[in-house]
Amino acid sequence: MSTWEDNVRRVVPYVPGEQPKISGIIKLNTNENPYPPSPMVVRKQMELNNLRLYPDDKAAVLVEALADYHKVDSDQVFVGVGSDDVLAMAFMTFFNSDKEILFPDITYSFYDVWAKLLDIPYRQPALDENFRLVKEDYYGENGGIVFPNPNAPTSISEPVSFVEDIVGHNKDVVVIVDEAYVDFGGESALSLTDKYDNLLVVRTFSKSRSMAGLRIGYAIGSKKLIKYMNDVKFSYNSYTMNMPSQILGTESLKDDEYFQETVNKVIETREWFREEILKLGFECPKSSTNFLFMTHNNIAAGEIFEKAKANKIYVRYFNRPRIDNYLRVTIGTREEMEIFLGFLKSLLV
Amino acid sequence: MSTWEDNVRRVVPYVPGEQPKISGIIKLNTNENPYPPSPMVVRKQMELNNLRLYPDDKAAVLVEALADYHKVDSDQVFVGVGSDDVLAMAFMTFFNSDKEILFPDITYSFYDVWAKLLDIPYRQPALDENFRLVKEDYYGENGGIVFPNPNAPTSISEPVSFVEDIVGHNKDVVVIVDEAYVDFGGESALSLTDKYDNLLVVRTFSKSRSMAGLRIGYAIGSKKLIKYMNDVKFSYNSYTMNMPSQILGTESLKDDEYFQETVNKVIETREWFREEILKLGFECPKSSTNFLFMTHNNIAAGEIFEKAKANKIYVRYFNRPRIDNYLRVTIGTREEMEIFLGFLKSLLV
Repeated sequence: MSTWEDNVRRVVPYVPGEQPKISGIIKLNTNENPYPPSPMVVRKQMELNNLRLYPDDKAAVLVEALADYHKVDSDQVFVGVGSDDVLAMAFMTFFNSDKEILFPDITYSFYDVWAKLLDIPYRQPALDENFRLVKEDYYGENGGIVFPNPNAPTSISEPVSFVEDIVGHNKDVVVIVDEAYVDFGGESALSLTDKYDNLLVVRTFSKSRSMAGLRIGYAIGSKKLIKYMNDVKFSYNSYTMNMPSQILGTESLKDDEYFQETVNKVIETREWFREEILKLGFECPKSSTNFLFMTHNNIAAGEIFEKAKANKIYVRYFNRPRIDNYLRVTIGTREEMEIFLGFLKSLLV
Repeated sequence: MSTWEDNVRRVVPYVPGEQPKISGIIKLNTNENPYPPSPMVVRKQMELNNLRLYPDDKAAVLVEALADYHKVDSDQVFVGVGSDDVLAMAFMTFFNSDKEILFPDITYSFYDVWAKLLDIPYRQPALDENFRLVKEDYYGENGGIVFPNPNAPTSISEPVSFVEDIVGHNKDVVVIVDEAYVDFGGESALSLTDKYDNLLVVRTFSKSRSMAGLRIGYAIGSKKLIKYMNDVKFSYNSYTMNMPSQILGTESLKDDEYFQETVNKVIETREWFREEILKLGFECPKSSTNFLFMTHNNIAAGEIFEKAKANKIYVRYFNRPRIDNYLRVTIGTREEMEIFLGFLKSLLV
């Protein structure tokens, strides 16, 4: 009996949202953008050649474009294969003390998976009864802090003063703010990165920039933070971002008009749809994201989830404590949301 | 004075080969393929749409295509962002004992970087005076084994019987054979993966398939090995391979004729070029890769490297013990190699 299995790292992996292979569905389950990327991105794709060559290991053109866009130095920008890669690298780089790191009980469900993978101790302070973070929960001694703002799957955002309060109380650890959804109405903490060298702000092209298929994430922080992350990244894989991602990501940043226009369309549809479901008796917090977090007293979320799926409408349901009667519904096009609304009305008659 | 830096993971990163930004150069320094990918790949690129959606987290279409190509089950195939990602995941998954892992003193210089990043103890048995692996060095107790076959930067391959001997002596640890260059003349150990559940064979699309820009690597092994690696992968990043990589990688596998043709052209150019440099007094082992490992008694490798660069010809030079008088020269097109040969002749008159 061989024993190589004794030394395998055993983990319970994260389970991503379903990616159904069938056609003709309304897909509101993984917070993608209903609009395609900028036409400039699509045109640029036709020009991609030189696939035989390695991509630039430093992704310098994309890093420069991000630095220009956010008006920071290029050595304050780290890029990775989606914000998951950026976050995983940040966990590996910064969370190496024996103390517990902190993140909310209801939040992005990859945080505890990374903590387990990397043997990082952690604790999850509970959101309050309105699903809000309680800042005092993050005042004590800890090994680091991470939370999304706006939070997911709650869709609720906190003001930048709230983030500053937490960062100010935690100057001896790294604080990571995951701003995957911030473009849909949150307040960014980017302006604080000048003042606090321990604050890392993480972003993605997968939501507001309609480019989930390309896997582009980035982080902005002090030069120190970014240097440490790059050392770990270059100890892991020199060429993480492929050539299409670097070139097409850069192209997306050039078309701000299209970006604003499609983000605004999602916001308009969200606000209209929220009003409609409130009329149907759903409860649903004000959202600063491209999804809504909704519940109804008369019909179980799990039941809506199953019945919607049978009607080829995919939304997300988490069978977890405190949120097992909620759905997380991505904002699709106006037409898709009208169909979903009609479906909900038919359930409630 | 804040103390967050006390808990940073401090590492010395791998340094990849130079990727010069200037044009008009002959680039023989990072073992890319001089020919573009299959025209089928280039055509398919024009059809890429739906970049707004997440790629398939399981990369199922590419995994199936690889399984068909290699005549294995699809649950014997793991895919990642280049073979570096695959190897890093394998290190993280399998090398968790307190015993030293083993790899040669002269080999791919990322192995010791990963070991340091992940706090894995390691030892590096020396290649013999002809730069060959000594199989007996890998018989003792250890925490795992990894080596490239053909080895880099030596370009020398060992027969499959040699690999089987090492695997057979190490049934209690995982043995990783890195076959990045095998298509250029090595003997693959793929056939052994049926017999040994602890053997992982790693491959890449970056060399023989001319797709370094897309970052596609994969591993083949027993279902057990692949399951453990997937658990770690899904604990790290669900969506690692982006949509272009999955779709265009699959397309490459469909065009075996083009693949064989371009690989053969590289081999022909290599054999011709090697004969020519032997005539010039270079020593150079028989290569089973897309590069040559060459040295000359009368002129220092470092000097050739610098002078070639001044002539816009980039080759690779490693200033390391035992190999500091060698160059690693990627095989380019016949025309490129003729220019390099002319340059070498001009140096030696």
